[in-house]
Amino acid sequence: MPTNHQILLDNRPQGEAVESNFKLVTSETPALQEGQVLVRHHYLSLDPYMRGRMNDGKSYAQPQALGEVMGGGTAGEVVESRSSKYAVGDTVVGMGGWQEYSVVQADQPGAMRKVDTTHVPLSHYLGAVGMPGVTAWYGLTQICAPRQGETVVCSAATGAVGSAVAALAKARGCRVVGIAGGAEKCRYATEELGYDACIDYKEHSDAASLSKAVKAACPDGVDAYFENVGGMVLNAVLPRMNAFGRIALCGMIAGYNGEPVPMDYPQLLLTNRIKLQGFIVSEHMEHWPAALKELGALVASGKLRPRESIAQGIAQAPQAFLGLLKGRNFGKQLVKLV
Amino acid sequence: MPTNHQILLDNRPQGEAVESNFKLVTSETPALQEGQVLVRHHYLSLDPYMRGRMNDGKSYAQPQALGEVMGGGTAGEVVESRSSKYAVGDTVVGMGGWQEYSVVQADQPGAMRKVDTTHVPLSHYLGAVGMPGVTAWYGLTQICAPRQGETVVCSAATGAVGSAVAALAKARGCRVVGIAGGAEKCRYATEELGYDACIDYKEHSDAASLSKAVKAACPDGVDAYFENVGGMVLNAVLPRMNAFGRIALCGMIAGYNGEPVPMDYPQLLLTNRIKLQGFIVSEHMEHWPAALKELGALVASGKLRPRESIAQGIAQAPQAFLGLLKGRNFGKQLVKLV
Repeated sequence: MPTNHQILLDNRPQGEAVESNFKLVTSETPALQEGQVLVRHHYLSLDPYMRGRMNDGKSYAQPQALGEVMGGGTAGEVVESRSSKYAVGDTVVGMGGWQEYSVVQADQPGAMRKVDTTHVPLSHYLGAVGMPGVTAWYGLTQICAPRQGETVVCSAATGAVGSAVAALAKARGCRVVGIAGGAEKCRYATEELGYDACIDYKEHSDAASLSKAVKAACPDGVDAYFENVGGMVLNAVLPRMNAFGRIALCGMIAGYNGEPVPMDYPQLLLTNRIKLQGFIVSEHMEHWPAALKELGALVASGKLRPRESIAQGIAQAPQAFLGLLKGRNFGKQLVKLV
Repeated sequence: MPTNHQILLDNRPQGEAVESNFKLVTSETPALQEGQVLVRHHYLSLDPYMRGRMNDGKSYAQPQALGEVMGGGTAGEVVESRSSKYAVGDTVVGMGGWQEYSVVQADQPGAMRKVDTTHVPLSHYLGAVGMPGVTAWYGLTQICAPRQGETVVCSAATGAVGSAVAALAKARGCRVVGIAGGAEKCRYATEELGYDACIDYKEHSDAASLSKAVKAACPDGVDAYFENVGGMVLNAVLPRMNAFGRIALCGMIAGYNGEPVPMDYPQLLLTNRIKLQGFIVSEHMEHWPAALKELGALVASGKLRPRESIAQGIAQAPQAFLGLLKGRNFGKQLVKLV
């Protein structure tokens, strides 16, 4: 029975999340019951939605229970099995949480799935070919629904979701414009991710200035907007939306620590007859197979080359997570555990 | 050739619209050309959308040209005809504008249509069985799409649009809650229009207070919201929306004079996976026949008993219009011209 290191939620944030909200503990992995599998996690996924779960208030995600292991997606390897469905050595993804090992009930629907690492590296099943990729796919194809030749804007352009948005929108013949923080991310967006242009929001001190940059980068206006950020960025893009534009509201990370993120001119939604829709990808499981198929093909063919920020060791997870909330990651944020 | 009194847009509002933006002029109606019809207007429709047209800026409606007759819906009677399509005495609705007479090209598609006043009074073709009614129908059935038993909230509850929203939502088995200004309007909403409850927003000084009243009136939350007002009212209803709620954004009259009407917590659209969609009914002409049929039947059967505020004489149109923007009307605002 290997020793397991786990990160618990110790207390809830007051405003900004801080490292002392978390607690690292050590335990022994329990002996397996019949039908159970022991998974050693190679990677832990860190995702912005986790910040919402740290609060107690009403949100789309159930609050994370205090004193329990933080939830989260994991990719790893079966190291012990008392189930005929999994063999030792199988590579799997699941929701193992912020810890090094997890015990999984093999027959629980949706608890875990085997993945093939022949053409797709294991870690990408937590990013481009996992939840963030499917998030991009759902918001882009089911809400933004861009037609060939339309202009799509995506904020948090180089993140796990944004990277996939770019590849999926390019595959549909769109002009794709990113918004990201810093010259390096913007360069990466255009040189590696396929964005036609990328705007560095850090060069702009207010929405009006950023909005001018959006106008310059989108001479035909914005037909579809994939929103991960909110706040100033949303206020900058909204005035550039064309009539009958669509906004997929995927995240509003600018407000996750409780900062006010008002929408300054909601009347633009009316005057331009815009559809804005919030969504959570886990509520649309019926789309996952088609999405994963397209995303896997994009990665295997090199059309989607996602970048990863990798923290080393479970003890680094809180700090890496807090950095993600501030945009310090570059691409998909992972914690490597082996 | 009768004398015609007309209201022109003389200059554009700086902030709040005022009477001096308009100008009353007198002219002679011109002699008819072949294919033309002279219509004497009995009623002029006054509608909030006209305020947007008074501005020069980009909006959904083309700006009203300066020095020309204000555009607007009219109901009247053919008094002279040089077209085989219309006979003297025909009752018609069209877009005759803010004047007593108009000359209509009879064969221009959509310029005018005959209406039957056997079961529906002529004026209602400018309200419940006209553009405002179809607006209610489109937003409710195509965007809100409420299911039986769901809770629908409607702001500007006793206006021309709101009255129809109530009847259409009740016909679909919904709980319908109105928001209106003043005890008298609220009483009318519940006693005459079929609202299950109505909240007087004037009793509340801020969104938080109004939001508590919405919560009390909607114990099961709000599934669909028909928005005519924006500002504080939108900020009060949004926190009460249920998951997968729908908001039909029909108007934001609170901001029509340029007042800021920010949406305080757009993140609620995400956490509750809400769809919000702006629309303009004139862009959905394919729905008008079905809508008018249902609305006509509701009026004829007494299930929709719209109220009208009637100003007398074309000279009163500007003042009546400015009152409409402040909610001084009670029901559909009309100007009677005969």
